[in-house]
Amino acid sequence: MNLNNQKIGILGGGQLGRMLANTANDYGVELHIMDPNPEAPCSTTCQNFIVGDINDFDAVYNFGKNLKVISIEIERVNVEALKKLQGEGVKVIPSPEIIETIQDKGLQKNFFKEHGIPTAEFELMDDSSKITTLQSKLPFVQKTRRDGYDGRGVKVCRTEEDLKSPLKGASVIENLVPIKQELAVIVARNPKGEVAIYDPVEMQMDPTLNLVDFLSCPANCPEEILKEAQVIAETIAKKFDLVGIMAIEMFVTKDNQLLVNELAPRPHNSGHHSIEACYTSQYTQLLLCLLNLPLGDTKLYSPAVMLNLIGEDGHDGIAAYPGIDKPLPAGTFVHIYGKKNTRPGRKMGHLTILADSVDSALEKAKIAKSILKVTT
Amino acid sequence: MNLNNQKIGILGGGQLGRMLANTANDYGVELHIMDPNPEAPCSTTCQNFIVGDINDFDAVYNFGKNLKVISIEIERVNVEALKKLQGEGVKVIPSPEIIETIQDKGLQKNFFKEHGIPTAEFELMDDSSKITTLQSKLPFVQKTRRDGYDGRGVKVCRTEEDLKSPLKGASVIENLVPIKQELAVIVARNPKGEVAIYDPVEMQMDPTLNLVDFLSCPANCPEEILKEAQVIAETIAKKFDLVGIMAIEMFVTKDNQLLVNELAPRPHNSGHHSIEACYTSQYTQLLLCLLNLPLGDTKLYSPAVMLNLIGEDGHDGIAAYPGIDKPLPAGTFVHIYGKKNTRPGRKMGHLTILADSVDSALEKAKIAKSILKVTT
Repeated sequence: MNLNNQKIGILGGGQLGRMLANTANDYGVELHIMDPNPEAPCSTTCQNFIVGDINDFDAVYNFGKNLKVISIEIERVNVEALKKLQGEGVKVIPSPEIIETIQDKGLQKNFFKEHGIPTAEFELMDDSSKITTLQSKLPFVQKTRRDGYDGRGVKVCRTEEDLKSPLKGASVIENLVPIKQELAVIVARNPKGEVAIYDPVEMQMDPTLNLVDFLSCPANCPEEILKEAQVIAETIAKKFDLVGIMAIEMFVTKDNQLLVNELAPRPHNSGHHSIEACYTSQYTQLLLCLLNLPLGDTKLYSPAVMLNLIGEDGHDGIAAYPGIDKPLPAGTFVHIYGKKNTRPGRKMGHLTILADSVDSALEKAKIAKSILKVTT
Repeated sequence: MNLNNQKIGILGGGQLGRMLANTANDYGVELHIMDPNPEAPCSTTCQNFIVGDINDFDAVYNFGKNLKVISIEIERVNVEALKKLQGEGVKVIPSPEIIETIQDKGLQKNFFKEHGIPTAEFELMDDSSKITTLQSKLPFVQKTRRDGYDGRGVKVCRTEEDLKSPLKGASVIENLVPIKQELAVIVARNPKGEVAIYDPVEMQMDPTLNLVDFLSCPANCPEEILKEAQVIAETIAKKFDLVGIMAIEMFVTKDNQLLVNELAPRPHNSGHHSIEACYTSQYTQLLLCLLNLPLGDTKLYSPAVMLNLIGEDGHDGIAAYPGIDKPLPAGTFVHIYGKKNTRPGRKMGHLTILADSVDSALEKAKIAKSILKVTT
């Protein structure tokens, strides 16, 4: 097998693409990456970086038509072009149908319902002006069906007051469940139907930004719940006939029930730690799927905590990293995504911290977080 | 600190440069790399790859004069240009004087003698035609003073017959010592004089190619010898006033004496495993030196074995990797350097194999080696 002429393309050139490109470098594989932003994180690290609109039919089709395989690092892409490419023999990983379902939280929820995947009770609402009729259902969560991410497009409604300024557009109205914990599981499946499942990670959200604050693995959670989370992940992968990788975010309710929250059919923030802590990182795993090679072992070989490096409030402009000149705790791995500009809340990098236990890694993570900032 | 305009240049664009560039990607740092080969491993992975002769004064000087820091991934570079650059304020890491000493095995041996570093007894010989006068010294090793690497430039002389075809040029004549084991230690030292030392690795050489066959860490060696090896490494770093990283290859003699064999003032084959097995890889450590940041912790967090992927005999041409489509043992990390062409004995990649013990990793390494080949 000749590795350097595999003609693999990726839609999206953000940090996920950048980390995938690093893995591809390890395999001697050259990626083609397209992103609308000429200064995207991949623009400086990918051999074949192309500026183009990943939501535009022609741009995606023209990018893909000479490729053997095309994949994504973000799900907001033009699915129609992917369908046409697939029809013409280009391997699309994950399938356009999966991307289409996951682009729309309404379709995602219907998929869960149809396949008996546990998820919070919901109804779909086409027009947000009708939300005032849902008074009796309070409290609930309104989620826009499309284009919500990193906490955008989600609104918790507790009072009638909250109903006066609903999110615009079609949305999902979901029961507010009493959440004890949030888990995420990454699952990979290849064309032969082989499945590889990662240890669930525990996500600790920043209550204001609705971004993952710390992520830890192994999760502090009873073994049977973790096993069940993996079974659910495998079921979803099989029901979707997935080829590629998928991150599955779940809630553990206060009565220890698992409810699937949402899916991402690509590398995910909750799998960053796999670069240093797992035998096969989520990026390598995806690359193996794209190359149609056997999946890798997912063993976690060190407890790990991950934290995002987020642009500080009040800073908008060329990014600087005060604190990078200070010693960071032993076992801290720095990932800076090479984004030129920071702005409040922007994901600019992450740290993975390894230690002999999650508790010790968490302690070190708090120290690292207090040292390293992203400002202007 | 703004990371993406650090103006760091590297002479040499081989696999060591490629792995360094991957680390630089993790830090959002853009490297400038020069190599004479337009298809060098770095040509496809480095943002700013320049074709140029790293042994040519003008090429090196012109490459370096607009940089803030310049370093190497190979020691055969034009030292005079580096001295001029250093005189003009460019930081040269490691110093040109260290590179100059290490380029010449005669100067290296003299350095050891001068500073009381244990090394095999030797004498210098300007002209190899005189080797026949050394009959009484047999057996010994003849090493060319310059340009020997990967086993080239080393000849073991046991009989008078061997003396009839000596290596050409000035050489070191070294007592043949009874070797029980070979170790390598990587040491890093930054401008503030902080030192970080890695766990010694055990090198198991392929007897025909004189290339490292398997490398394992931790080394199977009494604790006090390992400690002593680290003390010697630290002493060498300090005596050189090293800034940067250095690999120190040592022999353990049959009577448990440590003798320093040779030095490399750059990332080294014996440190590849540090990417997956150490808190700070040798590449990250060098980058931290180049950025003048605090050194990282060197803790080995998993036993590891490394094996080089070497071009098979009888294969010369576009490289293929038969066996890559077979499952490799759990814990195998693939590194393929992206060299277009293979030839017999060429280093085309490496595998790092992690396991709960070196013995288990070694077993897996043997399986991996039997699966994955480099052919045409």
